[in-house]
Amino acid sequence: MPLLVQKFGGTSVGSIERIEAVADKVISYRNAGNDMVVVVSAMGGETNRLVELARQVDPQARGRELDVLLTTGEQVTIALLAMALEKRGYPARSYTGAQARIMTDSSHNKARIKSIDNVKMTDDLKQGRIVVVAGFQGVDEHNNITTLGRGGSDTTGVALAAALKADECQIFTDVDGVYTTDPRVEPEARRLDTITFEEMLELASLGSKVLQIRAVEFAQKYQVPLRVLSSFEASEGTLITTEYGTDKTMEQALISGIAFNRDEAQLTINGVSDTPGVAYQIIGPISDANIEVDMIVQNVGADGTTDFTFTVHRNDFDTALEALEQTAKRMKAREVSGNNRIVKISIVGVGMRSHAGIASRMFEILATEGINILMISTSEIKISVVVDEKYLELGVRALHDGFDLKTKS
Amino acid sequence: MPLLVQKFGGTSVGSIERIEAVADKVISYRNAGNDMVVVVSAMGGETNRLVELARQVDPQARGRELDVLLTTGEQVTIALLAMALEKRGYPARSYTGAQARIMTDSSHNKARIKSIDNVKMTDDLKQGRIVVVAGFQGVDEHNNITTLGRGGSDTTGVALAAALKADECQIFTDVDGVYTTDPRVEPEARRLDTITFEEMLELASLGSKVLQIRAVEFAQKYQVPLRVLSSFEASEGTLITTEYGTDKTMEQALISGIAFNRDEAQLTINGVSDTPGVAYQIIGPISDANIEVDMIVQNVGADGTTDFTFTVHRNDFDTALEALEQTAKRMKAREVSGNNRIVKISIVGVGMRSHAGIASRMFEILATEGINILMISTSEIKISVVVDEKYLELGVRALHDGFDLKTKS
Repeated sequence: MPLLVQKFGGTSVGSIERIEAVADKVISYRNAGNDMVVVVSAMGGETNRLVELARQVDPQARGRELDVLLTTGEQVTIALLAMALEKRGYPARSYTGAQARIMTDSSHNKARIKSIDNVKMTDDLKQGRIVVVAGFQGVDEHNNITTLGRGGSDTTGVALAAALKADECQIFTDVDGVYTTDPRVEPEARRLDTITFEEMLELASLGSKVLQIRAVEFAQKYQVPLRVLSSFEASEGTLITTEYGTDKTMEQALISGIAFNRDEAQLTINGVSDTPGVAYQIIGPISDANIEVDMIVQNVGADGTTDFTFTVHRNDFDTALEALEQTAKRMKAREVSGNNRIVKISIVGVGMRSHAGIASRMFEILATEGINILMISTSEIKISVVVDEKYLELGVRALHDGFDLKTKS
Repeated sequence: MPLLVQKFGGTSVGSIERIEAVADKVISYRNAGNDMVVVVSAMGGETNRLVELARQVDPQARGRELDVLLTTGEQVTIALLAMALEKRGYPARSYTGAQARIMTDSSHNKARIKSIDNVKMTDDLKQGRIVVVAGFQGVDEHNNITTLGRGGSDTTGVALAAALKADECQIFTDVDGVYTTDPRVEPEARRLDTITFEEMLELASLGSKVLQIRAVEFAQKYQVPLRVLSSFEASEGTLITTEYGTDKTMEQALISGIAFNRDEAQLTINGVSDTPGVAYQIIGPISDANIEVDMIVQNVGADGTTDFTFTVHRNDFDTALEALEQTAKRMKAREVSGNNRIVKISIVGVGMRSHAGIASRMFEILATEGINILMISTSEIKISVVVDEKYLELGVRALHDGFDLKTKS
């Protein structure tokens, strides 16, 4: 019998009515002839409520006891879902992370899964039971309760699918799949039937927050077919896999989607001497200030000096600018400038590997619309440009149209 | 170093402020030179909230999954209390029932403790940590989560005290000890410094709901000195022990306290033939209807027949009366009567064992007040009478005064 692992997030189990709807959905897959393992998050809002309780005791609450507290959230959901399944006449059994023997390291609040002992769950499946597992949690070798960090329930689902050799891991969420771009910006955005792991990783890290990056990496590593579906609408969702699906095998699409990020800010230091170690001297103090750097571009400038530009989260702009000005003084740079009214737009596609001219087509489309490009960065399967924030919608729509993403290729 | 096990109930940990007050209290005992193990219940109201969630899914919710759900309540409290202790600079570690290896049988919702593996807790204590344990919960041999039934946290406290060979188990509650009678009825009721296990059992089962009977029995069996104290007021509370304390050793009090029960109803069947098996024929149908019988009195009646009287909870009166009328027909009894406006008043005291005349003194006191006794039942350390409910307060006060309970003996 095929084995499915299904994961339902906090919104999908946010009330008793929704938990009952999840039970009905799981049963429909069960009746279709599948063995079922279901991973659930805490009911929507519950984790925040628990965090708030912890903060009242200790504003800096973290570590072991925070994990003991937070894991109660999923434990409530597994019990309620198992009850709902049994009420409907389907034998079910719930597992906390500890009971599922989801063994992790001891990094409380951000533990990594090391192994899963699937003997008991496999036995339950053999006896026809539906297995319900608490997402986001595990235990270390000393039986201390750990959590995988926020959103870790996706990772639990994928890890269980890998351990149990499931045929598919299905992540139910409030969107019905991965789109060519954000439908709020481009109403004609189209849901993709399939996408590769690599593309998904680029899209996820670029702002299409459908799945946890960690879960995608995990699925890629263990070759677990991963599907994103809507909890609330009937649709096939998007299958994330190593191979292209039917909509791409015949004539490969050049690009799969367009991602964007509104929260960027750009910083530039001009006229620093072009010597070894200069990048470290500039980025080091930014990292030391705990600021994450996104794009980095270095150009050769005039008279043996170099110009160096990078982007950070908009919230970090002021701190980064201050640090950069210190660095400029120390390095005797000509000038420092910054712009926190910029956005990043990226096109992503495995198809661009084998097609020349994608970049120039992208620049042409943007030029036609009169959009000035402030910064460019490329990788094997994506090209990102930084533009003034006022061009975000125009740029995304023009690229979506220009690369013909509206119609199925 | 002396080892104390302290247990705090739902009211005592009902808010963040109260959990912090518990942390301060525990620390004061720690600073006084004790090793500390703390058992806590779910925050007041939390268990009811969880039960309500379960009922929405399944009005008959019970068994394995209900235990998975309910045990989250105490898990929240142990985490918050451990955080509060650590915030104050006192190393602490929380334990769920499973982590504390509180091994039970597999009777979900009403499991019995079989053993406790104290190795890890003992190790924590040696390292100077305060150990915080979730009350009310355990695991069976298959690692299924179990609960001990409502109020089981007292039992957890006593069981831990026995397993860890604690010097005392202290139960903090919203009353500051065991009283000679209910202060709401007799304002001059006095807190007892000590009471024996046997007396406590009689008082508890008679309506002085200070401690779970199970916990008292457990403490008696394992000879764990048990103390009831107030969470909110400073007082020595009442020590429950095998031996009399200082207030009784010199001149033993005749009785320790006066219990009463307002929820009784009385049923009588008159003129049944006095033959073997008659008691079973009468009480059998009552038990079959799942009604608990409290007092049972049988008298020899006129002309070789017998009169049989028993009491039940007032809520069960109508059902019991109906069953008894059926029985009366079958047995050709003369008459059935009932009264649901009665109460039971009992005097309890180990002292009465060695003193004759206690019963007659009790009857004399009641007679002086013109209180008619409807039914009498005696055991080695208690005498119970049933009277019209209008005499409850008068009877309790008269006995309290007549047996000189106001002043310390």
